[in-house]
Amino acid sequence: MTATPRMQGVLSPVLTPFNADYTPDADRFIRHCRWLLDQEVGLAIFGTNSEANSMSVAEKRKLFDALLEAGIPPARLMPGTGCCAIPDSIELTRRAVQAGVGGVLMLPPFYYKGVSDEGLYRNFASIIDGVADDRLRVYLYHIPPVSQTPIPRAVVARLLKSYPGIVAGMKDSGGDWKHTQGMIEEFGPQGFDVFAGSENFLLADLRAGGPGCITATANVNPTAIVQLYKTWKQADADTQQQKLDATRAAFAQFPLIAAMKAAIAWKTGRADWVHVRPPLVDLGAEQQQTLQASLDKVGFTMPNAAALA
Amino acid sequence: MTATPRMQGVLSPVLTPFNADYTPDADRFIRHCRWLLDQEVGLAIFGTNSEANSMSVAEKRKLFDALLEAGIPPARLMPGTGCCAIPDSIELTRRAVQAGVGGVLMLPPFYYKGVSDEGLYRNFASIIDGVADDRLRVYLYHIPPVSQTPIPRAVVARLLKSYPGIVAGMKDSGGDWKHTQGMIEEFGPQGFDVFAGSENFLLADLRAGGPGCITATANVNPTAIVQLYKTWKQADADTQQQKLDATRAAFAQFPLIAAMKAAIAWKTGRADWVHVRPPLVDLGAEQQQTLQASLDKVGFTMPNAAALA
Repeated sequence: MTATPRMQGVLSPVLTPFNADYTPDADRFIRHCRWLLDQEVGLAIFGTNSEANSMSVAEKRKLFDALLEAGIPPARLMPGTGCCAIPDSIELTRRAVQAGVGGVLMLPPFYYKGVSDEGLYRNFASIIDGVADDRLRVYLYHIPPVSQTPIPRAVVARLLKSYPGIVAGMKDSGGDWKHTQGMIEEFGPQGFDVFAGSENFLLADLRAGGPGCITATANVNPTAIVQLYKTWKQADADTQQQKLDATRAAFAQFPLIAAMKAAIAWKTGRADWVHVRPPLVDLGAEQQQTLQASLDKVGFTMPNAAALA
Repeated sequence: MTATPRMQGVLSPVLTPFNADYTPDADRFIRHCRWLLDQEVGLAIFGTNSEANSMSVAEKRKLFDALLEAGIPPARLMPGTGCCAIPDSIELTRRAVQAGVGGVLMLPPFYYKGVSDEGLYRNFASIIDGVADDRLRVYLYHIPPVSQTPIPRAVVARLLKSYPGIVAGMKDSGGDWKHTQGMIEEFGPQGFDVFAGSENFLLADLRAGGPGCITATANVNPTAIVQLYKTWKQADADTQQQKLDATRAAFAQFPLIAAMKAAIAWKTGRADWVHVRPPLVDLGAEQQQTLQASLDKVGFTMPNAAALA
């Protein structure tokens, strides 16, 4: 068995296209994944921005299998597999590892609040023990603004000690660069790769020795984000970062998932790209117009958008 | 088809017994449900205190079927069926309605935070439309301290207008009696039954015209809670309420689910009752001793505990 190469660069929590009746559209999903790979973006399918928790385990398994059948290289996949129920997490993680994914992105269980470090540790340990496969690479998903359940340093340290090589890194979506930096400084030397959770911190992450970012807006603005990743040592890196931030801000004036889907619908001419599953809501006509004006203002374009139509 | 009688009285989010390997123990679950029915407590299986979100849909279906096969009367069941993913909510709700349950208790989707009223409405409407069965009775589960997603009045009003007769009531676990009272006053006249989410507010709920309570500690202290429900117009009602509050406080000094399971293990002599699924953690030996001393002090007993062993 060859060693799994460590994942790095720019990954995207891949948007999940739905039909008007809220069923997933596997064909559009495959096309979107291919387009992202063409842009050199890795595929963090089933993330927060994929509306993964709004899908059943069976729906996720079906979409995952559809990607493999379509020839998407599994090494470029980092599916989200952390659920509230350990059996669900084990099922999704096992399937992913058996397919040869580069890693999995694992949310903590997010129903109960104020859970103890011991309980969080037992959750992740139970999943890793249940999957029982040395090929597993776990990226812990720290996103307290949404999950309301942070993954504290003490839990990371204990997991790294129990499962060296398997606990591979983190996506830090806390929005606090100091926290990301602290994680890189404390755990980076043990081979723990801390991805920034937004391209806002891409340059900072790379300068601190991090591996890159896993960011929602790579769904719509991949070229410029990947360009910074490739050229971050050049003199214009800070200018590039400022431009990325301006584009992200244009999207973030609205709920991000609905805004990205509206932008793809606009650029591809495919109106069905707008659909989101409840409890999310698609943008209204007026919001779409405001978004388009803002995106025009920052010079936003999508390369080869026809491939997504 | 006969009309479903409206549910009322005292219900309990039934604790789910697990084995040491965290698998559910269906036999102990059935015995616990029978014991609760003998105490005249209705069965709100798959609630927060049942660790329902720590179980897969398949595990919940299996436990539900086991209850039916054991002859538990479905009219006494109010299973929790609200999940983050609409297909899961539809699957669990449909199965429950087809079995003839008295009602279902429906959480809002709880991953995304700050969702709009429109998105919440679409979620519940999609589930009700998906189940498409006039026998459905939905009790909305308002528990913002845990779900972090309240169910606002505007959403209740709109659902009642769209689905009269089907939207049947609420469990209010917000911990704020003024909120419960406001819900009873505003929506009670439309046949909307607002259960208190704790026996702390049982007397207040009944005096305000509410149907009773759905409360965790009915798992361990059913007799006294049901006694107050039956005799709330008597002169000693306030004294009864104070005694209920004291017993609850003894449990609530520790995480409630672990504490209730420890108490059952103690009173039945069955040590395997202590198991909780991660991210929850069972009580340590010292905590168990403190709990037992507190319970002795308030004169806590469990009637016919042998039936649970």
